[in-house]
Amino acid sequence: MDMSAYPLLEGIDEPAHLRELPQSQLPRLTGQLRDYLLNSVARSGGHLAAGLGAVELTVALHYVLETPFDRLVWDVGHQCYPHKILTGRRQEISRVRKIDGPAGFPVRDESPYDTFGVGHSSTAISAALGMALASRNRNENRKTCAVIGDGGLTAGEAFEALNHAGDVRPDLLVVLNDNEMSISENVGALNKTFARLLAGGVYGNFRAEAKQMLEYMPGPMREFAKLAEEHVKGMLIPGTFFEELGFQYFGPVDGHDVDELVTVLERLREMDGPRILHCVTRKGKGYARAEANPIAYHGVKAFDPVAGIKAASGTAPLTYTDVFSQWLCDMAEREPRLWGITPAMREGSGLVAFAERFPDRYLDTAIAEQHAVTMAGGLACEGEKPVLAIYSTFLQRGYDQLIHDIALQNLPVVFALDRAGLVGADGATHHGMFDFSFMRCLPNLTVMAPADERECRQMLSTALAVDGPASVRYPRGRGPGVAPDASLDTLPVGRAEVRRRGKGVALLAFGTMVAAAETLGDELDATVVNMRFVKPLDEDCIREMAETHNAIITLEENMIAGGAGSAVIETLAVQGLRPAILQIGLADRFVDHGERDEQLELVGLDTAGVRRRINDWLGRTVAPPVTSG
Amino acid sequence: MDMSAYPLLEGIDEPAHLRELPQSQLPRLTGQLRDYLLNSVARSGGHLAAGLGAVELTVALHYVLETPFDRLVWDVGHQCYPHKILTGRRQEISRVRKIDGPAGFPVRDESPYDTFGVGHSSTAISAALGMALASRNRNENRKTCAVIGDGGLTAGEAFEALNHAGDVRPDLLVVLNDNEMSISENVGALNKTFARLLAGGVYGNFRAEAKQMLEYMPGPMREFAKLAEEHVKGMLIPGTFFEELGFQYFGPVDGHDVDELVTVLERLREMDGPRILHCVTRKGKGYARAEANPIAYHGVKAFDPVAGIKAASGTAPLTYTDVFSQWLCDMAEREPRLWGITPAMREGSGLVAFAERFPDRYLDTAIAEQHAVTMAGGLACEGEKPVLAIYSTFLQRGYDQLIHDIALQNLPVVFALDRAGLVGADGATHHGMFDFSFMRCLPNLTVMAPADERECRQMLSTALAVDGPASVRYPRGRGPGVAPDASLDTLPVGRAEVRRRGKGVALLAFGTMVAAAETLGDELDATVVNMRFVKPLDEDCIREMAETHNAIITLEENMIAGGAGSAVIETLAVQGLRPAILQIGLADRFVDHGERDEQLELVGLDTAGVRRRINDWLGRTVAPPVTSG
Repeated sequence: MDMSAYPLLEGIDEPAHLRELPQSQLPRLTGQLRDYLLNSVARSGGHLAAGLGAVELTVALHYVLETPFDRLVWDVGHQCYPHKILTGRRQEISRVRKIDGPAGFPVRDESPYDTFGVGHSSTAISAALGMALASRNRNENRKTCAVIGDGGLTAGEAFEALNHAGDVRPDLLVVLNDNEMSISENVGALNKTFARLLAGGVYGNFRAEAKQMLEYMPGPMREFAKLAEEHVKGMLIPGTFFEELGFQYFGPVDGHDVDELVTVLERLREMDGPRILHCVTRKGKGYARAEANPIAYHGVKAFDPVAGIKAASGTAPLTYTDVFSQWLCDMAEREPRLWGITPAMREGSGLVAFAERFPDRYLDTAIAEQHAVTMAGGLACEGEKPVLAIYSTFLQRGYDQLIHDIALQNLPVVFALDRAGLVGADGATHHGMFDFSFMRCLPNLTVMAPADERECRQMLSTALAVDGPASVRYPRGRGPGVAPDASLDTLPVGRAEVRRRGKGVALLAFGTMVAAAETLGDELDATVVNMRFVKPLDEDCIREMAETHNAIITLEENMIAGGAGSAVIETLAVQGLRPAILQIGLADRFVDHGERDEQLELVGLDTAGVRRRINDWLGRTVAPPVTSG
Repeated sequence: MDMSAYPLLEGIDEPAHLRELPQSQLPRLTGQLRDYLLNSVARSGGHLAAGLGAVELTVALHYVLETPFDRLVWDVGHQCYPHKILTGRRQEISRVRKIDGPAGFPVRDESPYDTFGVGHSSTAISAALGMALASRNRNENRKTCAVIGDGGLTAGEAFEALNHAGDVRPDLLVVLNDNEMSISENVGALNKTFARLLAGGVYGNFRAEAKQMLEYMPGPMREFAKLAEEHVKGMLIPGTFFEELGFQYFGPVDGHDVDELVTVLERLREMDGPRILHCVTRKGKGYARAEANPIAYHGVKAFDPVAGIKAASGTAPLTYTDVFSQWLCDMAEREPRLWGITPAMREGSGLVAFAERFPDRYLDTAIAEQHAVTMAGGLACEGEKPVLAIYSTFLQRGYDQLIHDIALQNLPVVFALDRAGLVGADGATHHGMFDFSFMRCLPNLTVMAPADERECRQMLSTALAVDGPASVRYPRGRGPGVAPDASLDTLPVGRAEVRRRGKGVALLAFGTMVAAAETLGDELDATVVNMRFVKPLDEDCIREMAETHNAIITLEENMIAGGAGSAVIETLAVQGLRPAILQIGLADRFVDHGERDEQLELVGLDTAGVRRRINDWLGRTVAPPVTSG
């Protein structure tokens, strides 16, 4: 990018350069940083609104803290772009989330300034506490700071960390970046408390008077008075929530006043013990369109900053999320006991329409996956029909609840697992790579994966009909394009679907891999089975396939380790059948960010990759290879 | 039990009978109930101190609530024995936790009064919220009450539930049973706040004066005044933590004054919205020995109530927990960067000695598994050597953190997984049945299981030496009795140990199953391999075994689904080898409480069961059966 519009920013290749600037230059720098961020993300796409809201905070933190010696831990990481720009990745940020560019979140391998890898929320205080304790025991006199949003604070892990930090009392500064948002609007009682606190008249009046007074004071005294102001506010305004957790509370301060932030942070840096600074920011700050619609500008594709994001023209192709969204509303019409539950992902999980049409049966728990799962169990105990819409990667956070509250009690809860498999630009933290493995080992669960959109709807209806917990996992984005019908019919539980009869080789495909299997089945004249159910498996079908074919090839978009293919080979072992076996799936490594198509190619799960893999194997094993059809 | 000493209790076969008693009889009843509980548990063993502390609360709740129409949800469930006694299981309680007796925790299948199955902590508010919302949407005018301890409140899920309940505002009463204990002493900043709150002079003085006043009032007015007192206390005393979460706070009240409890609960029952009653109780109440040592009397074996628990005479045989405990201290002597971390299980996990000797490197996070895992990650980022001692079943609650914070970042954290496999009397909620399955699908992890005590110590040293996350999983109780040596030597990573060379059949055994494999190996003249590593698997060894034997039998104390045996057969598929395969492990169902030996027999993992299984299979598959040696 042409840097002539960003002369101050151009000089900053690392935070040490930033710290050479006089404080008076910081407002200019934040202006340039904000413009740079906007223009860069407008070209590349990526997370925008969170970064815009954190510009001043990022500058102030790197200005005051001696990063990377001092540890700065960002929670979730959506807000990290300004941080990446200031820490030597100014040029690279234009390739953010691309396969050859920096990650959209802090990543330890990427930079020493990225102290802790994130992507899921609410881990920062825990990680920072660990770092602060290490420093304390080694007398390193290092400062540690965690920055967490009000959304991130709704998750239990953040509470656990506050409660522990308030007890062991490390030298730890927590900055609460309060914009009354997570990805969607933030919910939860605590959020209302924050809002009351900010709207409170006491502080408002006090603040107005104090401001006037401050203007007449000489510099150093003014700074002292500002700090005193923070203390007084702490007394006047109930930061008691944090104080009861053992933290000293400061704030609220204007998170867009970089001068005030630096002044406060400099004083806070000198203190010890657990302390929290409450900053009020606006998501999307400085770009009017994003301020007005921070949800739309949370994550964007490339766009023209002058014109703003374009509304999708014409009818957008149906995504799996759309299929779920439509099914949920249709089923709710018929089934008065159906509930739709989301842990803070109303938009991403397709619950917007349901929330509008069935507000009494809609529950947004905030970022609280554990609670969401158990609460669904409580509803199910009463004969209600809870449907929990949750990304595969986030169900990992409710795993014990899935086992202990749902599976063990055999409670009929439907898990609609979106973003299963590789998810594209969000990268390694967000892939749904493990759900087949961690779910199928649990008794009582029914585990499904649709081959197409139509089947996804059928499986959701099936999941609701099953007398026990059931999950349907589907990928990000679009499927093969098989339009769902309007019916709410179910599928026979535990029955696979033979899509093609061939000979020699049987391709047993799960979910997203059915499409590739069909293509290759035609090329190979192989049998193709859409397995549909990971659990219960169609054991009769597997037996028949093994008895009538020389080779069985399983295909899935999940770890090979313990995945659906392993379920097949476990079954074959029980049946005493020993065909040649090839398991195709995800190998034993994490997968970085990029486009979903690129990732599938990278891991060899695109059609060409699967063809190569099969041909190679057949060549070595049982039959001559085939060429592309 | 002879009921002549418990005439009131004898008449109560269900809570409706209790509700027929005049309130004035309740103190007598609580006395009888407490005696009955003590004498019963003294004979049967089981959880004692928590139940003793909850006697009055249990009586008052069933007296005021119209159970089972009103929903009463107990958290964790250690305190549920009085509840079970009052709800038709008075006689059965003498067989509590035995294979043919009631569970030690509430279980839905056992009674309509057990509204939600528990065992792990901090789920009750979530479950009760689900129930309360169901009632609200159906206008059933049902009351819902969750009882949670101050220990349970330290876990994030409880906070998530409070935050959500305070937002959606159901008709929900939360009773905080505050005894300043979980299983061990409770820790965390919030606990200190509660303690301050209880010690507060303001309320103390107010209360003394109010009591005097109350004595001069006529009955109904006195009751009203008592309620008013609660309100005033709520204003005077900072229950703000709960109020900021949207709850109305009442208390603290004396949780052993059944009269006061009934009066307050009757008023609270008539109210609506989220409200919390803070009860102060004493764990072990009414039995001096248990009051004096509630940790020792938390869970007991059969004992003489007059003499109390006997200290173990002579040298107790070494448990795996002891092996870990000794190793941790020995290694901490050598390695100044080693930390010992427990989520509130200091005694159970064997950290008592370490906590005394290395207090600066000991961290009890409270019941906060998510935080504990991530914090360990933060320590590891700084080059520290965190060892997280956690039961297998509780690691389920830190699963996302294990994936997202530890495995993804390849951080060297040691997981010492105690209570892996079947755990005995705690039953279905507490078995460590899934850890091989949910861990081995994660990249970067090293997963080990020792065959004996000596190897357990070697593996712990190995885990600390590995440059990445590593786990050692070992069972409850004792092993085969192979004394560990004093060294801190490591094992070669990924190498199995051939313990016996035989022919025809190779037994590939993991962890606890090595002992049975050795016995049967002698009988069968089979090869016996102690696999040691679930991940990385010794692929060379597996290849050699498959190439030199007709049949491979895998043995593990984990689910067959996705377990260690599946890792073996995945490897065989990759190697293109097709021996006959038998996987022995846990089948696809949960396992109830009982003795560990009984459970192993029940699931066929005792030596006799494995012998039967192998002989049956060999008879059908590859070779003639053998008879017991």
